[in-house]
Amino acid sequence: MTTIKDSVHDHIEVEGAAEALLDTPEMQHLRHIKQLGTVQLVYPSANHTRFEHSLGVYHLASRALSHLGIEGDAAAHVEAAALLHDVGHGPYSHNIEDVTHRHTGKYHDDVEGLVARGTVGETLEDEGLDPERVAALVEGDGEFGQLVSGELDVDRMDYLVRDAHHTGVPYGTIDHERLIRELTFVDGELVLAEGNVQTAESLLLARALMNPTVYQHHVARISKAMLRRASERLLDEDIDAEELRRMDDPDLLVALRLTDSTSAFAERLATRDLYKRAVWAELPNVPDSIIDAEHDALAAFERDIAAAADVSPESVILDVPSRPSMTESSSRVMVNGEMRQLERESPLVQALRTAQEQQWRLGVYAPREETERVGRAAADVLGLDVDGALVAEVRSGLNATLDEFE
Amino acid sequence: MTTIKDSVHDHIEVEGAAEALLDTPEMQHLRHIKQLGTVQLVYPSANHTRFEHSLGVYHLASRALSHLGIEGDAAAHVEAAALLHDVGHGPYSHNIEDVTHRHTGKYHDDVEGLVARGTVGETLEDEGLDPERVAALVEGDGEFGQLVSGELDVDRMDYLVRDAHHTGVPYGTIDHERLIRELTFVDGELVLAEGNVQTAESLLLARALMNPTVYQHHVARISKAMLRRASERLLDEDIDAEELRRMDDPDLLVALRLTDSTSAFAERLATRDLYKRAVWAELPNVPDSIIDAEHDALAAFERDIAAAADVSPESVILDVPSRPSMTESSSRVMVNGEMRQLERESPLVQALRTAQEQQWRLGVYAPREETERVGRAAADVLGLDVDGALVAEVRSGLNATLDEFE
Amino acid sequence: MTTIKDSVHDHIEVEGAAEALLDTPEMQHLRHIKQLGTVQLVYPSANHTRFEHSLGVYHLASRALSHLGIEGDAAAHVEAAALLHDVGHGPYSHNIEDVTHRHTGKYHDDVEGLVARGTVGETLEDEGLDPERVAALVEGDGEFGQLVSGELDVDRMDYLVRDAHHTGVPYGTIDHERLIRELTFVDGELVLAEGNVQTAESLLLARALMNPTVYQHHVARISKAMLRRASERLLDEDIDAEELRRMDDPDLLVALRLTDSTSAFAERLATRDLYKRAVWAELPNVPDSIIDAEHDALAAFERDIAAAADVSPESVILDVPSRPSMTESSSRVMVNGEMRQLERESPLVQALRTAQEQQWRLGVYAPREETERVGRAAADVLGLDVDGALVAEVRSGLNATLDEFE
Amino acid sequence: MTTIKDSVHDHIEVEGAAEALLDTPEMQHLRHIKQLGTVQLVYPSANHTRFEHSLGVYHLASRALSHLGIEGDAAAHVEAAALLHDVGHGPYSHNIEDVTHRHTGKYHDDVEGLVARGTVGETLEDEGLDPERVAALVEGDGEFGQLVSGELDVDRMDYLVRDAHHTGVPYGTIDHERLIRELTFVDGELVLAEGNVQTAESLLLARALMNPTVYQHHVARISKAMLRRASERLLDEDIDAEELRRMDDPDLLVALRLTDSTSAFAERLATRDLYKRAVWAELPNVPDSIIDAEHDALAAFERDIAAAADVSPESVILDVPSRPSMTESSSRVMVNGEMRQLERESPLVQALRTAQEQQWRLGVYAPREETERVGRAAADVLGLDVDGALVAEVRSGLNATLDEFE
Repeated sequence: MTTIKDSVHDHIEVEGAAEALLDTPEMQHLRHIKQLGTVQLVYPSANHTRFEHSLGVYHLASRALSHLGIEGDAAAHVEAAALLHDVGHGPYSHNIEDVTHRHTGKYHDDVEGLVARGTVGETLEDEGLDPERVAALVEGDGEFGQLVSGELDVDRMDYLVRDAHHTGVPYGTIDHERLIRELTFVDGELVLAEGNVQTAESLLLARALMNPTVYQHHVARISKAMLRRASERLLDEDIDAEELRRMDDPDLLVALRLTDSTSAFAERLATRDLYKRAVWAELPNVPDSIIDAEHDALAAFERDIAAAADVSPESVILDVPSRPSMTESSSRVMVNGEMRQLERESPLVQALRTAQEQQWRLGVYAPREETERVGRAAADVLGLDVDGALVAEVRSGLNATLDEFE
Repeated sequence: MTTIKDSVHDHIEVEGAAEALLDTPEMQHLRHIKQLGTVQLVYPSANHTRFEHSLGVYHLASRALSHLGIEGDAAAHVEAAALLHDVGHGPYSHNIEDVTHRHTGKYHDDVEGLVARGTVGETLEDEGLDPERVAALVEGDGEFGQLVSGELDVDRMDYLVRDAHHTGVPYGTIDHERLIRELTFVDGELVLAEGNVQTAESLLLARALMNPTVYQHHVARISKAMLRRASERLLDEDIDAEELRRMDDPDLLVALRLTDSTSAFAERLATRDLYKRAVWAELPNVPDSIIDAEHDALAAFERDIAAAADVSPESVILDVPSRPSMTESSSRVMVNGEMRQLERESPLVQALRTAQEQQWRLGVYAPREETERVGRAAADVLGLDVDGALVAEVRSGLNATLDEFE
Repeated sequence: MTTIKDSVHDHIEVEGAAEALLDTPEMQHLRHIKQLGTVQLVYPSANHTRFEHSLGVYHLASRALSHLGIEGDAAAHVEAAALLHDVGHGPYSHNIEDVTHRHTGKYHDDVEGLVARGTVGETLEDEGLDPERVAALVEGDGEFGQLVSGELDVDRMDYLVRDAHHTGVPYGTIDHERLIRELTFVDGELVLAEGNVQTAESLLLARALMNPTVYQHHVARISKAMLRRASERLLDEDIDAEELRRMDDPDLLVALRLTDSTSAFAERLATRDLYKRAVWAELPNVPDSIIDAEHDALAAFERDIAAAADVSPESVILDVPSRPSMTESSSRVMVNGEMRQLERESPLVQALRTAQEQQWRLGVYAPREETERVGRAAADVLGLDVDGALVAEVRSGLNATLDEFE
Repeated sequence: MTTIKDSVHDHIEVEGAAEALLDTPEMQHLRHIKQLGTVQLVYPSANHTRFEHSLGVYHLASRALSHLGIEGDAAAHVEAAALLHDVGHGPYSHNIEDVTHRHTGKYHDDVEGLVARGTVGETLEDEGLDPERVAALVEGDGEFGQLVSGELDVDRMDYLVRDAHHTGVPYGTIDHERLIRELTFVDGELVLAEGNVQTAESLLLARALMNPTVYQHHVARISKAMLRRASERLLDEDIDAEELRRMDDPDLLVALRLTDSTSAFAERLATRDLYKRAVWAELPNVPDSIIDAEHDALAAFERDIAAAADVSPESVILDVPSRPSMTESSSRVMVNGEMRQLERESPLVQALRTAQEQQWRLGVYAPREETERVGRAAADVLGLDVDGALVAEVRSGLNATLDEFE
């Protein structure tokens, strides 16, 4: 048994297959992938990695299994899946996942590679575990898969608390111990026991508050969009998408620095000389055709905006988030002996959906000195409703009252 | 200057009038009044006092004043008011305030006594402060009074964080430093600066989560109701209401122990041998006439239930909370340069109102062995809708799945 | 199983005999006894009780037993002993223990009462445990008794962390989880496993730093001495020592308030109008005959000093701590396969002994306006070396640079 | 003014020259240099950077200056020096500083570069500050320089607390606020005010406990030695020492991966496949000539050991720490009105010196399968006293009872 000291959960005991998996190159790779990617440019302390998060998820899974009375083979598979759940992550976590996925068809939780090849698969087999079964659990399949990936999974419990600890933003500080103690299985569904509507709500609220403050902070979004653009340029060079996907953060950072077509972005990111908002538009002001456009269409819009504004194509980045969703809303809670979905029980769910829609923003980013021209051109090209409530913001580019750091 | 070490805010510097006020008997009296009264029977660590809370409120007021650029005489008055805001508290904080108020007409923030007599008034005058002005600030009057008592007051910021620290329930852990930094005055109104709708929401949510988990926990409510009943009996003896109001927690506890008619309650409280729920009814199942009944009417209901159940009058306690309210909902936030009420900006406010209504419960409490008889009698006497969703709960007395401790 | 939320250890699970013991009057009594007595007058947040500490000790004992692989009957007895270890505590914890002991011959860990009578003994028997065996464990007897009371006991681990949490003084924040994981039995002795000399040192250092900062802070000592004096006066009235020993904090406080001969002390304590130091003398300046004097001799000195200073006998309190000791110094640690005492391994042990001796102070306390006269008289009567290094301090009474609060 | 959220100090306000300096490439460079280098291989959460540490040092300096009443120009220079104190750091902080220093003659606090060229110098001048004066403060010159670099500097206060927060090891949790409040200048010397011998001791003890547990943990030392060796190989290639010194962590990591002669080390570090201890010898067992040997002599020993063991020269790393020192021992504290050095006042200082000497270890590291042969050869070549107390350890290679992770 190995005991590892963690800044969030104190001592984490790793044993059995998990201990063997810890030393695979695929797990060690996660030491060099930041959990929150470019959020570190907003919250300087947010340098924690997918490695420590994976340990945390493993730890919470172990505790949950023990509370649920699940042991032996079943538990070993779930623990392995918990530890491995992020093993496919490319550089900068979710930040450039769209890019690599578009070119490779693979997401970080694409478990094919996890099973078929590499040391992880071998180690699992050496330890008497079935790689296919672990892979299925990572994808959330089956009764126990819900613990690893589902509305009440331990992944979310760990990252909320961990991100709060490392950013210093307290909103994510949920009572994870209580959540884990109240988990139970009813008819094969993972639910929270009687009397826990509020416990479920607290999980939902924590994410609802962390989202705009941390995960979707505009500076994090801008730098992520810049990183994504630079990574696309890298793929035009002699690096292919599969290679990009296997990089860690330092690999990508240095590749961007050393490649001619991306060194300007690398320099900007390194010195925090970021693009600014040329447009920051609310949901009702954006045509559906833009919101639902595919990557190629968006790239075409970017080129059109650049042409209309008479700036270099690299000066325009269009950032259209997907429509808001809220997976926790279907968390299941026991109420008066019946299993119910949280959204049926809690008036907060609908309110948080509305809040999310209100917080949704389309962004167009450009170098500071070009925001005005780009903003005007973008409003034109994208057909934004500039007579609406956001006119001032759309026109003036950067909203001067917003703190760039926080 | 005195520096005091606080478990929540670390070092608190007390100077000027505040330092002199610290040593008045009225302030020292607060050392013996628990902040959360009977909540300690649910959360054993919740033994913090009104004294340390008062220091915390003073500290946050000082920081807010410094951020707002308010100095000199005005600041000294606000700081004194912050330190003194709870000086009128009787034993067990809010727990028996209804009782003493009914007999004395005075609430804890009744500032008449604060000003007219006692060492506090003298000390204020010795320090060159105007007692009347301090009293008005405690009541929330005027521009600066909003800092001490209002939708965005520092009282609430301190107690949420402090209660979270001492109960171990993390929900109250707000970002108080951020809240204080974003306070500003616009047209004489205390508001949160631009970009802080979420900051305001986080305050609201913290209280919404702490409320049922801590402040309105059913065990805390039961023990509070028992304490209230016992205090009423005390007033039938040779103790008058004004005397009761001036007691601290040990005074009341010992008086209850030493008085024949209350020693049984004292014994039950001391050994945590509490009444149980005979009825626990939701808002729609309770007639308006019960919800809005005055004290005398409720006392009559209690007697009627006891008679119907054929138990001693002391075996029935009827606990009817007032209708839910939510003062933070009218917090003011700047949005696009305009001052707006939070409830207009945030879809959460209405949802939290609904949640509060759903959480509202009328309680009838009785000794464990009498809950069934008392429950049936109470449903009858109070005209509760026992065919509704809560029938089972109403009938069975205690809900067996609820954890008595937490 | 009952789960209790604790501000230090988060969730504490109480089961079996421990759960039954929790509701005995003897355990509930501890809810009204502050862990740190008068330290609350120095650190206003230090209001935690023996009850929550007892839960914490039980929790750490459970974890240690589980790590050591001790189960069943043996574990149940140790857990009961851990929970009950403070059950004999009188009011204000150790503060007035000398007084009650002198009159009753009993210390708080006198386990006779624990076993022979009361609900605790009955409950233990109902739960199939042997009261005599539990009592022996509380006294530290036998192999497993070392866990409850010994150099490496869980009592100390809990109180250091808990007192740090509640005072805000970080020095006590030890790595209790590590300590517990490294405990092992070798030849019937509780030791720390190989590689833990430093772990043992950290425990020693934590107490060495908490001691003068918290436990022996001069204001805590003064108020404790005043409380002790007042309690002695109480025994001259119609309260006997056994009755005093069975009081809780509120009982004692109110008794002091209501008794003529002690109400002045009660008033002083209630308003923090404390005596000041008239003498504060280091070890080398104090004759051995004083240091080793018994209670009656010290009382005679007090009377002589009062006479010499021409003040009321109540105006002089002589406070002579026992000679410094350091139980942790004999903690056992494995070093290169051998069991060794910490003091043989660590150069810090001797240094800390020296430091403790340097910090030792004899105190003579008096009302502020009489400190000068009392100080001079005391130096005379006690034969203190007033030409030595402490002359100034002895003469001037209160050391003006010391912060009264911290 | 910019407000930055920090996980340790919460909100940090940066203003004036410091705000301008924040955006220089030299400061942003520190975002990519881990504070604790390879310690992350022992404590997975220890990923914090020199950037956030620099902000923390700036913050504590500001608070200290404000307590000391230092304002205006003097304060601005000290604050700039605090923010910039680590600006010269090369990759992996102190880990490979010896290497770059040997080749460039420059240490991280070599302030020449800081002043003469680069954006930092320009920014200082633009902000009306004197680069030479800032440089002198970084070096600890003058009265105020002691705040930045000296026995009681704010650098140490920040790193102890920050490293504790991020590793999870509580020993570094000092009361930094108290330390800062008690700082004062006496005759141009920075001292702790009267009554703070213990405060000074607590700083010393925190470092004494963090040292072996964190900073000098053997796994951190081994990986650091491997990194140093690999960096030396890099200098044999087409990278010069000045270029190496200007790298950040990702640059170095990727350079090691891409260079043939270092890729094996890079692979080992990336997968945590580290060398093990072939020898781990205490101070008395090591000849003075080895302890005091220069780099070239040590390199020759390494080659001799490899030859004697008949292994590749890359299989032997000799790690000889410099003799223990303890700068805090000369901290100055006021005692009875006199300024005294801590070592004269505190018996702990000498004890900690002895403890440090006892903890000193010479290490010889080799691939796991070669430790036995290398160990024997090294004892021979270095003339280690293998009949002494450490024979077993010397012979057996890795001490099996030591936890590799912690």
